[in-house]
Amino acid sequence: MAKEKKLVEAITSMEVDFAQWYTDVVKKAELIDYSSVRGCMILRPAGYAIWENIQKQLDASFKETGVENVYMPMFIPESLLQKEKDHVEGFAPEVAWVTHGGLEPLQERLCVRPTSETLFCDFYANIIQSYRDLPKLYNQWCSVVRWEKTTRPFLRSLEFLWQEGHTAHATAEEAEERTVQMLNLYADFCENVLAIPMVKGRKTDKEKFAGAEATYTIEALMHDGKALQSGTSHNFGDGFAKAFGIQYTDKENKLQYVHQTSWGMTTRLIGAVIMVHGDDSGLVLPPRIAPVQVMIIPIAQHKEGVLEKAAELKEQLSSFSVKVDDSDKGPGWKFSEQEMRGIPIRIELGPKDIEANQAVIVRRDTREKIVVSLDEIHSKVAEVLEAIQNDMLERARNHRDAHTYEAHSMEEFTDTVANKPGFVKAMWCGEQACEDEIKEKTGATSRCMPFHQEHISDTCVCCGKKAKSLVYWGKAY
Amino acid sequence: MAKEKKLVEAITSMEVDFAQWYTDVVKKAELIDYSSVRGCMILRPAGYAIWENIQKQLDASFKETGVENVYMPMFIPESLLQKEKDHVEGFAPEVAWVTHGGLEPLQERLCVRPTSETLFCDFYANIIQSYRDLPKLYNQWCSVVRWEKTTRPFLRSLEFLWQEGHTAHATAEEAEERTVQMLNLYADFCENVLAIPMVKGRKTDKEKFAGAEATYTIEALMHDGKALQSGTSHNFGDGFAKAFGIQYTDKENKLQYVHQTSWGMTTRLIGAVIMVHGDDSGLVLPPRIAPVQVMIIPIAQHKEGVLEKAAELKEQLSSFSVKVDDSDKGPGWKFSEQEMRGIPIRIELGPKDIEANQAVIVRRDTREKIVVSLDEIHSKVAEVLEAIQNDMLERARNHRDAHTYEAHSMEEFTDTVANKPGFVKAMWCGEQACEDEIKEKTGATSRCMPFHQEHISDTCVCCGKKAKSLVYWGKAY
Repeated sequence: MAKEKKLVEAITSMEVDFAQWYTDVVKKAELIDYSSVRGCMILRPAGYAIWENIQKQLDASFKETGVENVYMPMFIPESLLQKEKDHVEGFAPEVAWVTHGGLEPLQERLCVRPTSETLFCDFYANIIQSYRDLPKLYNQWCSVVRWEKTTRPFLRSLEFLWQEGHTAHATAEEAEERTVQMLNLYADFCENVLAIPMVKGRKTDKEKFAGAEATYTIEALMHDGKALQSGTSHNFGDGFAKAFGIQYTDKENKLQYVHQTSWGMTTRLIGAVIMVHGDDSGLVLPPRIAPVQVMIIPIAQHKEGVLEKAAELKEQLSSFSVKVDDSDKGPGWKFSEQEMRGIPIRIELGPKDIEANQAVIVRRDTREKIVVSLDEIHSKVAEVLEAIQNDMLERARNHRDAHTYEAHSMEEFTDTVANKPGFVKAMWCGEQACEDEIKEKTGATSRCMPFHQEHISDTCVCCGKKAKSLVYWGKAY
Repeated sequence: MAKEKKLVEAITSMEVDFAQWYTDVVKKAELIDYSSVRGCMILRPAGYAIWENIQKQLDASFKETGVENVYMPMFIPESLLQKEKDHVEGFAPEVAWVTHGGLEPLQERLCVRPTSETLFCDFYANIIQSYRDLPKLYNQWCSVVRWEKTTRPFLRSLEFLWQEGHTAHATAEEAEERTVQMLNLYADFCENVLAIPMVKGRKTDKEKFAGAEATYTIEALMHDGKALQSGTSHNFGDGFAKAFGIQYTDKENKLQYVHQTSWGMTTRLIGAVIMVHGDDSGLVLPPRIAPVQVMIIPIAQHKEGVLEKAAELKEQLSSFSVKVDDSDKGPGWKFSEQEMRGIPIRIELGPKDIEANQAVIVRRDTREKIVVSLDEIHSKVAEVLEAIQNDMLERARNHRDAHTYEAHSMEEFTDTVANKPGFVKAMWCGEQACEDEIKEKTGATSRCMPFHQEHISDTCVCCGKKAKSLVYWGKAY
């Protein structure tokens, strides 16, 4: 058992050092590797396959709402980036600049897209003329670059993969509707597929996207009690349309500006899955996102008939994503690997099992062992995968709820942030001064003004003036 | 009919000006739009959807052979690019250089990947230790940048989408086997899905990839008789492994260098589809790649029951990719649009058809009209789509064969290239001097030394010395 122990021991316990545990899991589960470029990571097959599953399911949901995919250039001329004032202020400090093409210097430098609003606006100004051309519901899957000083795998890197939806509408109402629709779609996806419950709400002006009228967000709580912004949806109003001259003639033949939205989710979601569901044995993947859902591990595989039966079982379970680990490692080692990689179910199958026409299903999340007849194994696996998916969501929700606190005074606020990692619900007057003060005193930032508002006090937790809104606060990634 | 005429007239006839016809189709079928960045194009929904279909099917074929997807950074440090001598000489003159990150100059400039051999090699040197780690069969879908002077939509652009496979093997034999396997997979895909027949062969040393031992290629013939290199597969031997120190310990515990391959196909394939199958009414898409396979066009749609019946028919045909054009344009206009967009089948359905329980299927490729009972329409559509797919391949093959010539002397060679656009088969001595001379005198380049060798003469068509190989020559995109 020495070997197995070594593999497991190599991970720092999450209670001892959560940050190190995270880094260990990311490396040992072979999700990523570091590259020769500072802050850029390599998505290895086990990591990229999770992204492919996210992509496939999100993309199908987008298309159901009429969204079409496009691909825009990765470069933005400096003059184009500068067209919308707030936008350029927000992004210019953190972009990568291309100054030479081949052996020659460029006349105008190009930035590598940090996001593509300006390109989409330029495009829309060209192709939108009449109300008949609206709405435009475009999305692209690509990578973007932001020149961050400090980086962490999946959570913050110089280059990351994402999708960015960009829509143009005839009316303000339609744009607002689409902004909220996509936020809800994101939240549903996170809950139903990633088994992560979200707090949905609106960002304060301080935290909103550079150039947006309103930014909506979904916020998740990680195992360590820190928040993670997991997706955002922005309503731009007609600000970009005015900066870029995106106009259409309406049915009365009058020129009108379009109203726009954008919305995005990134590989950061993989970081959320790790930090919400993982444990000291490694990754725990929700079945709906797991590249491999079932790992069959033959016991005493050298004995006659064992590998054949394992192959037969794989065939029987082929409606799931299933593999057999028939490598020359010992079963204990294989168990550790399957656990590290977060595969939802392993099936142990040895000579005695075969004799008894049975196998042992082991749940990754609870480690529960279920002996099951080989005649009923298909329906049992389906049932257990469903149970794992549901139980993971419920545990995540319980954890989130158990780590959501209320603060009615700054003392209580400070004390909570210092001693009880989690969300803090507190009333706010709407002034940025209080937001700044809270951040300075506690380290917590406003995560969102939740759609589901509660009235827990009449006054702002910071200044004592009349409260305008309940806010979720927290330390965040 | 004025409107319909206008749409069709807007395209230059391919016999009058093939290059202009191509540009017209690309724009009018809304496949691409130009962007504010020189040489970078926007893939619009109709264009990107073709790429998605290519991607989905190719990706599935790759995975069937054990390939896994990864994602590597888009930046390559200058020092890394320089590690393999031939490679850097080939690519350095045409890369984009990032020199600033945020507000600060970088210590070392980074190029935007023109291809990712160097990144994969760096990665493989880190993760390959033992024979147990081999083979590595990785692929990535991404965009790459090459700073070209002149560009054309799909065929040559500063940035383009592609896949690049990179594999590492224990033996030279295995690497060679994989190189050829992927070339065959590419050729099969082009024939079976894109309905484009390919000449498979090996590139001469002059035309091979920078850093490769051998480059294999698939070459297609466009409607105008010019050749298009459509996919390549490279055997690197152990050249990159030695430059990057990628070694493994074999079963005898000896250190060995790995043997590597890479292979890629790009959005250029969409250009091939346009130029092989298109006609003066626009795009003609093979059914297996068409984002919309069937367009139902209601006739007299204001009459009672027509739109309802069209919706019913759409439902009945839902196992295909089918749409109803119920916009407020006239049927003739809708026909022109469906033809321009290359949708393989349109179904005309009007009040008289409904009365007679029938509809009219019109093939995009031949314009043949087929009256069919609504009771049998599902199987008829399946049959017609299959016939279109097969007939398109056959027509492309006939065109290619009818435009493939032999040359036994330089006079014949020059005359053929000048007057009969197409492939020229001619014997070659193996010397680059003759290749250069042929290019200078005729404008034709060596496309490949075909796997299927014929012996049409004993002597080199250029110098008259002993011939080593039959070569396909041609003017090329």
